[in-house]
Amino acid sequence: VRQEGARTLLNWLGCAIGGSRHEAVGIAVATLSPFSGPPQATVIGRSERLDILHAALANGISSHVLDFDDTHSPTLVHPSGPVVPATLALAEHRPISGAEFLSALVLGIEAACRIGLAVSPDHYDAGWHVTGTAGVFGAAAAAGKLLGLDEQGMLWALGLAATQPVGLREMLGSMTKSFHPGRAAQNGLTAALLAAGGYTSSEESLEARRGWGPVTSPRQDWDAVAEGLGSRYEILRNTYKPFACGLVVHPAIDGCIQLRDEHALAAEDVERIELVVHPLVLELTGKTAPRTGLEGKFSVYHSAAAAIIHGCAGEAQYSDSAVLDPKTVALRERVSAVVDPTMAVDAVGIVMTLKNGRRLHKHVDHAVGSLERPMSDKDLERKFATQARDVLPADRIEALVALCRRVETLPDAGEIARAAAGGDRRS
Amino acid sequence: VRQEGARTLLNWLGCAIGGSRHEAVGIAVATLSPFSGPPQATVIGRSERLDILHAALANGISSHVLDFDDTHSPTLVHPSGPVVPATLALAEHRPISGAEFLSALVLGIEAACRIGLAVSPDHYDAGWHVTGTAGVFGAAAAAGKLLGLDEQGMLWALGLAATQPVGLREMLGSMTKSFHPGRAAQNGLTAALLAAGGYTSSEESLEARRGWGPVTSPRQDWDAVAEGLGSRYEILRNTYKPFACGLVVHPAIDGCIQLRDEHALAAEDVERIELVVHPLVLELTGKTAPRTGLEGKFSVYHSAAAAIIHGCAGEAQYSDSAVLDPKTVALRERVSAVVDPTMAVDAVGIVMTLKNGRRLHKHVDHAVGSLERPMSDKDLERKFATQARDVLPADRIEALVALCRRVETLPDAGEIARAAAGGDRRS
Repeated sequence: VRQEGARTLLNWLGCAIGGSRHEAVGIAVATLSPFSGPPQATVIGRSERLDILHAALANGISSHVLDFDDTHSPTLVHPSGPVVPATLALAEHRPISGAEFLSALVLGIEAACRIGLAVSPDHYDAGWHVTGTAGVFGAAAAAGKLLGLDEQGMLWALGLAATQPVGLREMLGSMTKSFHPGRAAQNGLTAALLAAGGYTSSEESLEARRGWGPVTSPRQDWDAVAEGLGSRYEILRNTYKPFACGLVVHPAIDGCIQLRDEHALAAEDVERIELVVHPLVLELTGKTAPRTGLEGKFSVYHSAAAAIIHGCAGEAQYSDSAVLDPKTVALRERVSAVVDPTMAVDAVGIVMTLKNGRRLHKHVDHAVGSLERPMSDKDLERKFATQARDVLPADRIEALVALCRRVETLPDAGEIARAAAGGDRRS
Repeated sequence: VRQEGARTLLNWLGCAIGGSRHEAVGIAVATLSPFSGPPQATVIGRSERLDILHAALANGISSHVLDFDDTHSPTLVHPSGPVVPATLALAEHRPISGAEFLSALVLGIEAACRIGLAVSPDHYDAGWHVTGTAGVFGAAAAAGKLLGLDEQGMLWALGLAATQPVGLREMLGSMTKSFHPGRAAQNGLTAALLAAGGYTSSEESLEARRGWGPVTSPRQDWDAVAEGLGSRYEILRNTYKPFACGLVVHPAIDGCIQLRDEHALAAEDVERIELVVHPLVLELTGKTAPRTGLEGKFSVYHSAAAAIIHGCAGEAQYSDSAVLDPKTVALRERVSAVVDPTMAVDAVGIVMTLKNGRRLHKHVDHAVGSLERPMSDKDLERKFATQARDVLPADRIEALVALCRRVETLPDAGEIARAAAGGDRRS
């Protein structure tokens, strides 16, 4: 559990660094800075420092804005986005050891995912972006733990969290999507602080007739919250994306990279690529001629072509120029896909015909990054380095990986945030 | 409409001053001050100044914490709580004339009440405290107007508001109830600021399949939002409480005060009081032996007794000591109530038997403060003075009443907030 906590932290930090230059983060920081309190906490990957509440918001936005963060498979909660910004900001404000920090991180993810489980899938189906609406409990629980709340205080903190659910699935596709984990982090941290100060709330905020559960979901299973608490850990079902796009495209990318590496393929070698995919793949990512980087994320054709050419599918493969690159466009036009309803959603079949007439086959049962084929520690470190390389100097990247790996032994967890400030390299 | 805007402002300001010493406000200000930005805006009735976002939160809490503020009858939205704190804080941050301020106030109340109408009563019945959940749109629209947002910007502001609904009816009875209008004010103001900065959101945040309307209410009537916009004004259906307790007790208090004044009664004259009430009165306020001020608000017996003894039912009549006062307790025990399902909820029948054997009758069709018997300007000024007298010196109270009355002509609307600071009298 502690290892998975450290992996979750490393993956989150890389995403926050990688997203730190995104326009959404820039707008939020520039707009809200005039109202920020003292420079208490780092905005990851940037030179600005804000009060802990605003820092939690900004870091929650940056870690989610590239859609590259973690996923708790059973609920679709992206749990680190609300939890880590709240705890990390607090760790810069008061002395918190690495062990305390890691314990709070695990607790927060447990709270968010278990409360998510209690209302899954109905709550999400009803239109709530569960990352923010259940995530706020994770932020409140984690911050409450670090603030030393007793049972009464924790009840109030969860009540203040319950009454501020963020946000709606309608916002997906706009900057407001990434606002959700950010605001959930800020709201959860605010809830814990107010509860610590004695601000009262309901003591049955989840389960009461007009509590969060019944109001936001037609069905609730509260056993999912309490069952096996302390022995079974939801963080062990957390997964990390190897590719900077929606999960349904991952098997095709994975298979193409495997074929490329196994046969040392270049784009020029490939005559055509035929994919056999789950129906959802074309429903969600069937764009044949994407025109922007964002549209490229919704094109299994671009993704497969980029995977062959670059051997990866990071944020760089989804820039506007990467999507319009003539070589990639030419290969993309030789990719086709047919739907097979018997194909699993994390599987793919690939038939690749080479210019020399040879036909290669590849079947992926579970894409890399899934629970069945988790990202290795090395994979996560490579992902981190790729995301950080345009933001931080190489020695700092290595140092940050080491800090995350030994988080449990750090005397001061705030060190991680301070080491991830981007001031010295900021343009 | 402008007159009603000025009346709404005066009533809101008195409530915020009257609530400014409440423990909930003290906790919120003390807890969040370390994270506040520059002292940009007044915390009404207090010496602290906070950044405009935190000031909006604090002033929204104080104006609602005594349950003494305004009510839009058709929706149960308390509209000024989310709208005025957002606009008034902004008026201290940038030059805003009284006329602009009043226009934004009216627009914000229109947005909150009309969006509330579109989902009433289903949204409230589902468990949402509509004051915060619809109120946030009022705060966003009013702030957006003052920030000069164009159509695109206003759509984004409403989207950012839609995705942060606060809060749950389960919180009623705790300090978190008053957090709702405060946080709605802060969220709406944040939404407008971010939208002005270019932070994108959905452009169909209310009506989309997974927008605010369908997600938070089983039924939506969007005609209620657009019908008669600019010719029919919902602020004309705003009402102001004469008594510091739930609306259902108001007819009994009103009738008792009328009998007291008509017959110059003292407690010693009264043998017993028999009330005939709507069923909801005993369901909500049937506490026969309240032990605290708060419990007193849920006792029609205490309320009737206090009305006879004091001739009013302000916050002072709902203090702990007022509820435990032996004279009031003795009279309270001689009050009885029977339910009559044919009685309207804003009506009451009273039979009062005097010690001298005489029997007095009073039937109240509509309680004072209802739409049918609105508070007069003089009533509102008296209410304001009563709420402010322990917080501000007498000359300042008079000056504030005058400022609110001529708000439309003020060169600088921020003057109202600054004149309501409580520093000089703060203990």
